[in-house]
Amino acid sequence: MRNLLAALCCLALAQPALADEGMWTYDAFPSAQVKATYGFEPDAKWLDHTRLASARLAGGCSASFVSPDGLVLTNHHCAHSCIEQLSTAKRDFVAEGFLAKTEKDEVRCPEIELNQLVAIDDVTDRVLAATKGLAGGKAFNEAQRGEMARIEKQCATGDEVRCDVVTLYQGGRYHLYKYRRFQDVRLVAAPEFAIAFFGGDPDNFNFPRYDLDFSFLRVYENGKPAKTEHWFPMSVSGPKDGDLVFVSGHPGGTNRKVTMAELELERDARTPQRLLYLAELRGILSEFSKTTPEHKRISSPSLFYIENSFKARQGRLAALHDEVFMAGKREAEAAFKKQVAADAALATAVGPAWDTIAAAMKRYRLILDRHGLLEEGRAFNSDLFGLARLLVRAADEMEKPNEQRLREYADARLPQLKQRLGSEAPIYDDLEITTLGWSLTVLRRVLGADDAVVKKVLGERSPDELAQMLVKGSKLKDAAVRKALFAGGRKAIAASQDPFIVLARAVDGDARAVRTLYEEEVEAPVKRAHEAIAKADFAVHGTSTYPDATFTLRLSYGRVAGWTEDDGRVVPALTTIAGAFERATGRDPFKLPKSWLTARTQLDGKTSFDVATTNDIIGGNSGSPLVNAAGELVGLVFDGNIHSLAGDYGFDARKNRTVAVTSSALLETLEHVYGAKRLVGELRGPVATK
Amino acid sequence: MRNLLAALCCLALAQPALADEGMWTYDAFPSAQVKATYGFEPDAKWLDHTRLASARLAGGCSASFVSPDGLVLTNHHCAHSCIEQLSTAKRDFVAEGFLAKTEKDEVRCPEIELNQLVAIDDVTDRVLAATKGLAGGKAFNEAQRGEMARIEKQCATGDEVRCDVVTLYQGGRYHLYKYRRFQDVRLVAAPEFAIAFFGGDPDNFNFPRYDLDFSFLRVYENGKPAKTEHWFPMSVSGPKDGDLVFVSGHPGGTNRKVTMAELELERDARTPQRLLYLAELRGILSEFSKTTPEHKRISSPSLFYIENSFKARQGRLAALHDEVFMAGKREAEAAFKKQVAADAALATAVGPAWDTIAAAMKRYRLILDRHGLLEEGRAFNSDLFGLARLLVRAADEMEKPNEQRLREYADARLPQLKQRLGSEAPIYDDLEITTLGWSLTVLRRVLGADDAVVKKVLGERSPDELAQMLVKGSKLKDAAVRKALFAGGRKAIAASQDPFIVLARAVDGDARAVRTLYEEEVEAPVKRAHEAIAKADFAVHGTSTYPDATFTLRLSYGRVAGWTEDDGRVVPALTTIAGAFERATGRDPFKLPKSWLTARTQLDGKTSFDVATTNDIIGGNSGSPLVNAAGELVGLVFDGNIHSLAGDYGFDARKNRTVAVTSSALLETLEHVYGAKRLVGELRGPVATK
Repeated sequence: MRNLLAALCCLALAQPALADEGMWTYDAFPSAQVKATYGFEPDAKWLDHTRLASARLAGGCSASFVSPDGLVLTNHHCAHSCIEQLSTAKRDFVAEGFLAKTEKDEVRCPEIELNQLVAIDDVTDRVLAATKGLAGGKAFNEAQRGEMARIEKQCATGDEVRCDVVTLYQGGRYHLYKYRRFQDVRLVAAPEFAIAFFGGDPDNFNFPRYDLDFSFLRVYENGKPAKTEHWFPMSVSGPKDGDLVFVSGHPGGTNRKVTMAELELERDARTPQRLLYLAELRGILSEFSKTTPEHKRISSPSLFYIENSFKARQGRLAALHDEVFMAGKREAEAAFKKQVAADAALATAVGPAWDTIAAAMKRYRLILDRHGLLEEGRAFNSDLFGLARLLVRAADEMEKPNEQRLREYADARLPQLKQRLGSEAPIYDDLEITTLGWSLTVLRRVLGADDAVVKKVLGERSPDELAQMLVKGSKLKDAAVRKALFAGGRKAIAASQDPFIVLARAVDGDARAVRTLYEEEVEAPVKRAHEAIAKADFAVHGTSTYPDATFTLRLSYGRVAGWTEDDGRVVPALTTIAGAFERATGRDPFKLPKSWLTARTQLDGKTSFDVATTNDIIGGNSGSPLVNAAGELVGLVFDGNIHSLAGDYGFDARKNRTVAVTSSALLETLEHVYGAKRLVGELRGPVATK
Repeated sequence: MRNLLAALCCLALAQPALADEGMWTYDAFPSAQVKATYGFEPDAKWLDHTRLASARLAGGCSASFVSPDGLVLTNHHCAHSCIEQLSTAKRDFVAEGFLAKTEKDEVRCPEIELNQLVAIDDVTDRVLAATKGLAGGKAFNEAQRGEMARIEKQCATGDEVRCDVVTLYQGGRYHLYKYRRFQDVRLVAAPEFAIAFFGGDPDNFNFPRYDLDFSFLRVYENGKPAKTEHWFPMSVSGPKDGDLVFVSGHPGGTNRKVTMAELELERDARTPQRLLYLAELRGILSEFSKTTPEHKRISSPSLFYIENSFKARQGRLAALHDEVFMAGKREAEAAFKKQVAADAALATAVGPAWDTIAAAMKRYRLILDRHGLLEEGRAFNSDLFGLARLLVRAADEMEKPNEQRLREYADARLPQLKQRLGSEAPIYDDLEITTLGWSLTVLRRVLGADDAVVKKVLGERSPDELAQMLVKGSKLKDAAVRKALFAGGRKAIAASQDPFIVLARAVDGDARAVRTLYEEEVEAPVKRAHEAIAKADFAVHGTSTYPDATFTLRLSYGRVAGWTEDDGRVVPALTTIAGAFERATGRDPFKLPKSWLTARTQLDGKTSFDVATTNDIIGGNSGSPLVNAAGELVGLVFDGNIHSLAGDYGFDARKNRTVAVTSSALLETLEHVYGAKRLVGELRGPVATK
C-alpha cells in the first residue's frame, strides 16, 4: 500500500519531467522551454562555453575538458581498450589501475582520437542541389557522396581539423560539423576495473549502482599538454535530488523517426541476427578467458564490449516486442500519413515514400546475412583482417578522385585511417585465431558449404586451420609493414603474399558487390524517401523538434531524480560510497579492489556515489559531463538504467534515466583511495580560484 | 532458362504431391486417399504389421525392428549418447564406431528405453467427464491429471507395459497409447561419427547429403534377445525416384493447429529466448571442446544436440517471420472465427476461446524467463542437478496418492524414472562444472543479482565457484547413492548434506511456484479453450484430418522425389556413394573415416546413398523406417531438408522433404566397409527366404 501511494505521489510529481525529452543540437537548443520548466535560461555564452568544454572520442564515446591544460574526463570503459593496449602480461593496468605520477608518466593511447566541436554550418541546400532530380539509386548515391566529400575536403584545412557532413532528421537537414582534432591523447589515470565496473554485467544498465567508471586523459599538441580555454570546474558538493542538470555529449544513434517498416526489419531480422552472433561469441570468449590468466586479460575489452552490446540490444528488442509501444508507433505513423494524404501538395511531394522504404526493407532482408558477413565483417572477426581489408581497399580507393572514393577513404578521413594503420597496439595471436576461426565457421554455417565465397575462402581447410595459418603467417602485426604496404599502393598490395592480404584481395569483390547492392537498393532509396518524409514532418509538426541522434554533439536537460517501477518499487536518485561496501561479496564482479578495502576508514561513506537523472541519452553518451546551471561538472555519465534502452525508439520520461558518477565520489576517491594529489590539485585548483 | 523450364516442368508434376501432407494416426489412416493418388491401398493387416514393426526410443527418436530376434534399426544420432556413454578416454566408439562380433559383445545402453505400440484406445469421454463443468484452472488441472493417472495405472499392468494418455487435436481427442516396453536395449553396431554425420552442422538439414546415420540396437528380455514377430525385411535394391514410400515413426511435435496468439508468443519470445541460450552455450562448449581431446569427446553429444536444435529452431523462426506464411495463417484463423460466429450454437460452445488463449499468452510472457530458468531447468544445466531435483521431488511426490502427483511421478511413469536413477552412464566433472557455472551466470543475468532466488542460490559465491563446489562435493554420480536416497524417501532427502540435494531442496519451492502459475494460468485455460476450438474445428472442417504431432506413432505417405528451389536449382532425389568421396576434403566435418578410404575400391560408387521423399515428418521421426508398399524397408529416415523445418507450422508439398539413408547404402557399406558379416546375415537371411 505504501509502495502504491509512493508511486502515485511520484507519478504526479514526475509530470513536468515529460518535457525533459530531447537530444538537442546546440544550434537549436530550446532555452525558453528550459526556463519555463526550471527557471534557468541558458544563453548563447553559456551554450558556447558548454559546447567547447565538451569533447568526443572518435571511437564512440563522449568526454569533457576539466582543466585549462588539456585534461580530459571520460569513462573507464571508454578508455578500456587503451588501458589494455598499454598493459602487458606482467603489468596489467586494467586490473591494477593507472596513475601517472608526473606529466612524463602520461602514456599515449595508440588509437584514441578526440574531437572538440568548433562550428556547425547548414549545408542542406548544397547537398540537395547536388542530388536534385535524381531518384534514390546509384546516381543519387554517387552525387551525394561526391558533394559531401567536396564539402569536407574544403573544410578540412589540415590534420588538426576534422570535418563531417552529418545527416540530421533522416535527411531533413545536412550539417557540416567542424572539429578541432587531437590524436595525441595520453592516459593520465584510471581506477581498477573492479571498481570502474563494480557489479559487472549483472548490474550493467541497472540502478542503484556503485561504479567509479572514470578515466582521465590529456590531449597534447606538439608534445605538450594542449591549452584548452573552455573546461568545466568540478563541483565539490556534487548533485542533489531535484537539481537541474544538463548532459552535453554524443548520443550514438536513435531511431525515433524511422518508419514502421524499418522498425520491423530491426525487430525481426537485424537485431536477432546480431544478438545471436554476440551470444555465441560471448560463449566462445568467456570460455577462452578461463583457459589462462593471460587469455583473461587479453579478451577482457572484447568481452566487456560484447556483454554490453548484448544487453543493450536485448533491451531495445524488448521495446520492439512491447505491443503497447509498437501500437503507439503504428498509430502515430498512420495519423501522419493521413495528414499527408489530406494535403494535396504534401501528398505529391512525399509520394510513395513509405512504400519505397518498405520495399527497400524487403530487399535488405534478402541480403542482410551476406552484407553482415562479408561487408560489415562478421565473417572475419579479426583485427588483422580488418587491417588487411583497409590496405587492400586503400590501394584501389586512393587512386580515385576524392569524390569518388568510398566515404571512409575520402581525404578528410585519412587522419583516422592513418592512426589505425600506424597503431602500436598489440594484437594477440591466440585471440585472433579464436575469434577468426569461429567467425569463419559462422560464415560457412550461414551461407552454406557450397557457397562460392565460402569455397573460395576455405578451400579444403577447416575454419580453425585457416585461421591458424593466416594469423601465424601474417606480418601485418608490424605497423611498419602496414605503413609500407599503404605507401606502396596498388602495386605493393598486388605483389603481397601476406596471407591476410591474399584473403582480403580474394573476397573484396564479393564484399563490394553486396555493399553496392545495399547502398543502391536499400540505402539510397531509403535516404531519398526519408528526405521527403522529413519535409512533410516539418510541414505538419513544425521545426521545433530535435533530430535523431547521429553521434553528433547534443545537449539534454533534466533533473536529478529516481523513479518508480511498475511494481511500485521506488528507486532513489543517489547511492553512497557506503552502499558499495554493503553490496560487495568479495567475488567478481562484486569484489572491491584492495585499494578500497585499505582506504575504507578514510572514506566518508555518506558521500554520494552514483546518480540517476531524467536526461535523455543513449549509447555514445558514455563519458559525457553532467553539468549544473552554474556550469560546474557535477557528474560523469556512464550508463542509463534498463528503461533507457528503449530510448532508441522513444523516450519514456517516467522511467528513462541517465546514470552518472558524482563529482563528489570522484574527488573523494581520487584523494582518499588513490592519493592522486597532482590530479586533485589540477581539478581543485581552478575551483578554489573560481 | 533451362532452370526455369525445369522448375515449371517439375512444379506441374509435383501437383499430386500436395496430397502427401499428413502425420496420420494408425487408427485413422486415409488408405482410400493413398489409393486414389498412388494406386495402393494399405489394408488393416498391412497397417497392423507396419505399426508393430515400428518402434519408439522413449528419449525422443523413432526406430524399427529388422529381424525376428529383436534387432532394431535407428539413427546413429539417436544412439549417440549411448555410444558415448559406453566409451572411455581410451576407447572412443563415437570416433571409431562399434561392432559387436558376437551376441556377447552387445552392450547394454544405460538410458535407452524402447516402446512398441500395441494398442490405441479412445478415452476422450472418460477424460472429458472428469473435467466436466470445470473452467480452465486449478480444479480442471487436478481433475484431468488425476483421471489420466488413473487410466494409465489401470492399463500399466507391469513394468513391461507402458501406457500414456495422449492429447490429440489440441484436446479434441484423448487416446490411450499402450506400448510394450523394453529397457534392456543393447548396442550392436554403429559406424564412425565422421560418416554418420558427414558434412556436420553445415550440411545438417541440407540435401544433397551423404550420411550413413545408422545404428543397430537389440532389445532383450530376461537376458536373451527378444522375439519380435513383426519386422521389416531390408530391400536390397533400395528406393527409386517416384516410388511410393511410407514413413512410420514418432514426429515429436508440430504446431499447425495452434492459434495466432500462440504462434506470436513462439516467434517473439519463446524461440528467441531458446536460440539465445543455445547460441551462447554452443560458444561455451565449442571452446571447451578445443581445450583437450577428452573435453572434445565428452562434450560431443551435447554439442551435436545443441547445434541440431539451434538450426531446427532457427528454421522454424524463419517460417514465423515469413510474412506471406503468417498472413495465410492469420487469414485462415479469421475465416474460421467468422464461420464459428455465424453459427449460434458453435459460437456459444466456443465462447471466448481465442481471447482466453491470447490472455494466457500474455501471462505466459511475464513468467517465461522464470519458468524456463527455474522449472525447465535452464538455470541448472547439469545432469547432477537434474538427478538431485528428481530425488527431492520424488520424496514429496511418492507420498501422495497416484492421481495427485506431478505427472512425471505417477506410477505408470516410474520405470523411466528408475532407469534414469540407476543409470551407470558416466557424468564428467569438467563438463558439469562448465555448463552449470555458465547456466548459473545466466540465472543471475536474467533475474538480476538482487532476485531472492539468485541470492539464495549464489549467496556470496560466484557462479563458477558454486558449480565447482557442488560438483566436487556431490556423491550423486554414484547410482547406488541415488537409489538409496530414493528408497529412503523424505527422511533421507531431508537429512542429506549432498550439496546438490541441498540446492535442489532450496529452490524446489520457487520452481514449483512458477510451475503452478504456468499450469494454472497458462496451460489449463489454453487446454480448455483448445478443446472448444477443436470441437468447432471438427464441426466446420470435418473429422477426416490428422492431429498435430505429439511424439505418438504416425504414418505418412509420399514418394521419392527431389525438388526445385525458388532460384530454379533442381535438387535430385538420390545421391550416390561416389558423391561422398567427391565431397570429402579430408577435414572435419568433411573427412571420411579411414575405413571408407581403405574400402573405396570395394565399394560400388553408383550405389544410392541418401534419398529425399515427400513424406511429412518432423524432429522425433529420426530413425523411422522408410517402407515401400511391399512392406520392405527401403530407407532409414535421419533428417529433413531445410524447408521441412517450417513443417512445424505447415506443410509445403513443393519443397518439404524427408531425408533418409537408403537400404542399399546400409547393406553395401555393412558388407564392404565394416565387414559386418553376422549382421548382414541376420538382415539378408530373412530376405532370401521370403
